[in-house]
Amino acid sequence: MDVSKFAKKELLAMGGGSSTRAAVTPDPKLINLGAGDPDFNQPNFINKAVYDAMKQGHTHYEFTGVPEFKNAIAKYYAKYGVKIDPNTQLCIDSGGSQAIFRAFGAILNPGDEIILLDPAYQGYFQPAAYFGAKMVRVAMKKDKKGLWRPDVPAIAKACTPKTKAIMICSPDNPTGAVYTEKELKALADVCIDKDILCISDEIYTEFIWGRKKFIPTMSIKGMEDRTLALMSFSKTFAWTGCRAGYTIASPEFSTLLNNVPIGIIGMPVPFQYAGAAALEKGWGFVRKMRKEYKKRIDFSVKRLNEIKGIKCAYPEGTFYVFPDISEVGMPAAKFGQELLLQEKLRGAPGTGYGQAAEGHIRFALVDKMDRLEDAWNRVEHFVKKNGKK
Amino acid sequence: MDVSKFAKKELLAMGGGSSTRAAVTPDPKLINLGAGDPDFNQPNFINKAVYDAMKQGHTHYEFTGVPEFKNAIAKYYAKYGVKIDPNTQLCIDSGGSQAIFRAFGAILNPGDEIILLDPAYQGYFQPAAYFGAKMVRVAMKKDKKGLWRPDVPAIAKACTPKTKAIMICSPDNPTGAVYTEKELKALADVCIDKDILCISDEIYTEFIWGRKKFIPTMSIKGMEDRTLALMSFSKTFAWTGCRAGYTIASPEFSTLLNNVPIGIIGMPVPFQYAGAAALEKGWGFVRKMRKEYKKRIDFSVKRLNEIKGIKCAYPEGTFYVFPDISEVGMPAAKFGQELLLQEKLRGAPGTGYGQAAEGHIRFALVDKMDRLEDAWNRVEHFVKKNGKK
Repeated sequence: MDVSKFAKKELLAMGGGSSTRAAVTPDPKLINLGAGDPDFNQPNFINKAVYDAMKQGHTHYEFTGVPEFKNAIAKYYAKYGVKIDPNTQLCIDSGGSQAIFRAFGAILNPGDEIILLDPAYQGYFQPAAYFGAKMVRVAMKKDKKGLWRPDVPAIAKACTPKTKAIMICSPDNPTGAVYTEKELKALADVCIDKDILCISDEIYTEFIWGRKKFIPTMSIKGMEDRTLALMSFSKTFAWTGCRAGYTIASPEFSTLLNNVPIGIIGMPVPFQYAGAAALEKGWGFVRKMRKEYKKRIDFSVKRLNEIKGIKCAYPEGTFYVFPDISEVGMPAAKFGQELLLQEKLRGAPGTGYGQAAEGHIRFALVDKMDRLEDAWNRVEHFVKKNGKK
Repeated sequence: MDVSKFAKKELLAMGGGSSTRAAVTPDPKLINLGAGDPDFNQPNFINKAVYDAMKQGHTHYEFTGVPEFKNAIAKYYAKYGVKIDPNTQLCIDSGGSQAIFRAFGAILNPGDEIILLDPAYQGYFQPAAYFGAKMVRVAMKKDKKGLWRPDVPAIAKACTPKTKAIMICSPDNPTGAVYTEKELKALADVCIDKDILCISDEIYTEFIWGRKKFIPTMSIKGMEDRTLALMSFSKTFAWTGCRAGYTIASPEFSTLLNNVPIGIIGMPVPFQYAGAAALEKGWGFVRKMRKEYKKRIDFSVKRLNEIKGIKCAYPEGTFYVFPDISEVGMPAAKFGQELLLQEKLRGAPGTGYGQAAEGHIRFALVDKMDRLEDAWNRVEHFVKKNGKK
C-alpha cells in the first residue's frame, strides 16, 4: 500500500534518521565516538529514588508536574542568576529532543523562518522541516584559535519579516564554543531589534572548561520574555535513556508550550521525583564526570594536534572535539565513512551539522582513556595511509 | 509581551485543558470519579524491574527500542489473532496520549478531515485541532438496552474526498461499547470503499465484561494495512504516571509514525524493560483489577438505576459508567458542576465528549466500594434535591 497519499506532506519531504543515531552492528573492535551518549552510569541513589517513588505509589497522573521537581529546577537555574517561578515558567518533557520539538511546535507555521547556525546540532533539522519552516543557515566564524564563534552581524542580516526565532546552543554542540556575555548582548540587540525569539539550547551547561562561564541567554537584559531555554538531564546526569528535559520561558510562553498536545505528562512521574533527588544530590557525580572529561579533552586535543594534517582547537565546553581535518584532503563524509570501514572508529562528519563544517569531524569523548588513545592511533594510521602525500 | 504574534496559528485557536484534567484542590470529602486513573498501584515486581534495569546500566540511548519489550508486545497482540513483526510494525511512545498525537501528526495536514464519533474521548480533540484538521463528528446511536453503537451508515455518509481517517475506540471511552465483528466489518467496508484509515484506540482491551470479546480492528480482512492500533499501559497495568504507549501498524505506516520527530526515544529505556516484565508476568494483577472493576460495575449500575431519573446501561467494556441523566432536567455541564459544588463528587459531563452526549455523565469507577456507595448516595441526594419535581 502506498502510504504517501495519507502522509502529512512535510513528513514526506523529510529524510530518515541522522548518522550518529544509526543502529551499529555490535563489533568488539568498534570504538563508537559517534553519539553523545556518556559512558558513565548514573549513581545508584538516582535509580533508588525512582524505585522509592514507585513503591510510594507515585505511579499515577500528576497533570501539572511534580512540585518537588519543578522547585528543584528553579533552585538550580537560580544558581546562574535567573529566578523563575516553578509553577508558571516550566514545561517538562521527555528529554531535550522533545523540548526542541515542542518549542518549534509552539511557534512555527509553514513558511516561517528559523535561523540555525552552521554548524548546528542536527537534531534541530527534522523538527524544523516537520513544521514546514524554512531553515536559514548562518555560518559561524572561526577565531584565531580555531574556535567557532557566532557571527552576530550575519545573523542580523539573515533576519526577514518571516523570521520567528534564532536557535543557539551554548555550550555549543558540535563546536564547543561557549557564548560570551558580549556575544549574547549583541545577539539580544538583534532579537529585540528584529522582534524575534531566541531558543537557547543549554544542555551542556555543566561541562565548561578553563575560566569560561556559563551565561544563560535569559539573564541578558531584554531577553527575559523572548528566550526559550532548553535543558536536559541526558548529559548532566548521564541520563540519556531515562529521558528528562525541560524548557524555561516566560509564563506566557510556558502556557503556549504546555498547550502543544504532545501527551498528558511529559516525563514519567517517578523520574520527576528522581530528578529532584539528582538536582539536590547529584553534583558529586557531575564533578567526577567533569574531571574525567577534562582529562580526556586535554589528552585528545594534544594527541590529535600531533597528527599531521589535523588541527584541533580546545573546546570551551561540551565533551566533544571537533578537529579540522581539511588538510587531509578528503571530504568529511568520506573521512567518516572510511574511518569506520578501515579503522572501525566512528565519528560524526562535520557536514552532518552543516556545509560550513566541511573538513571537520566530531568525536564524542565518551570512552575510557586507553580506548581514546587507541582511537587517535587509528586516526593517525588512517591519515598517514589516506592523507595527501 | 503579547506572545500571540509568535504562536503557531492552530495553537491560538485551541482552548485550554479539559475538565477531567483540571487540578483539584485537595479536599478530604471529595470523591473524584472524574479522571480515568486507576486506584490500584502496579505490583512491586514492575517497580523492581525498572530498578533492576537501571542498576544493570540500561539508562542509555536505545534508539530503536528495547527488543525484549517489542517482542513481548508482539507476543501479547498475537493472543488476539494479529501477528506482527516487532521490528517493523511498532512505534513506542510516552503513553497513549502521545500515540494519539503521533498518529494524527503523521497524517493530518491543515484542512484534512478526520471523523470522530460523538461522544468520543476528548483527548482526540486538541491534537486534531493542533494539526489544523477538521473534526467531523458522527453521532453514535443508542440500542434498545441504552448502549451506544457506532452508526456505520452515517460514518459512510460523512466521508468526503478530504477524509483521511476515522478514529474509533473499542472498548469505548466513555460509552463502554465493545465493537462487534459485524460492526467492524461494516466499518472496514467503509474504510476500504472510501480509501481512508482507521485509527483504533484499543487501550481498554483488557477490561471487557460478560461474553463480549475484544476484536482488534487490524484482524478484519482488508484492514491490515489501513489500521493504526493505539495501545497503552496506563489502564492495563494502572501505569498512568509511568507513561507507556505504542502503536501497531503496517511497516510502511510504522516508518511514517517513527519519523514524526517528537523525540529521540519514546519511552524511558528502563520502563521498556519493565514493560516486557509486565507483559510477561502482570496478568495476575490485571485479573485482580478486572474482578474488582466488575464488582464495582455490578454494584454501580444496579444502584444508579434505583435512582429516579437516572438510567444506566451496563457497559460492555471499560471501567466507566455513563448514565443517562436527562430526566433529571438539567444540562450535563450544570449537573457536573453542581454535583461537585453541592455534593463534592466529581464526574465528567457528557458534553465534554460531544453534543450527542448531552444528558449524560461519565463516572470512572476508580475508588473503593464503600466510597462508590457513598458517591451514589450523593447522586441520589443531589437528584432528589435538584431534579424535576
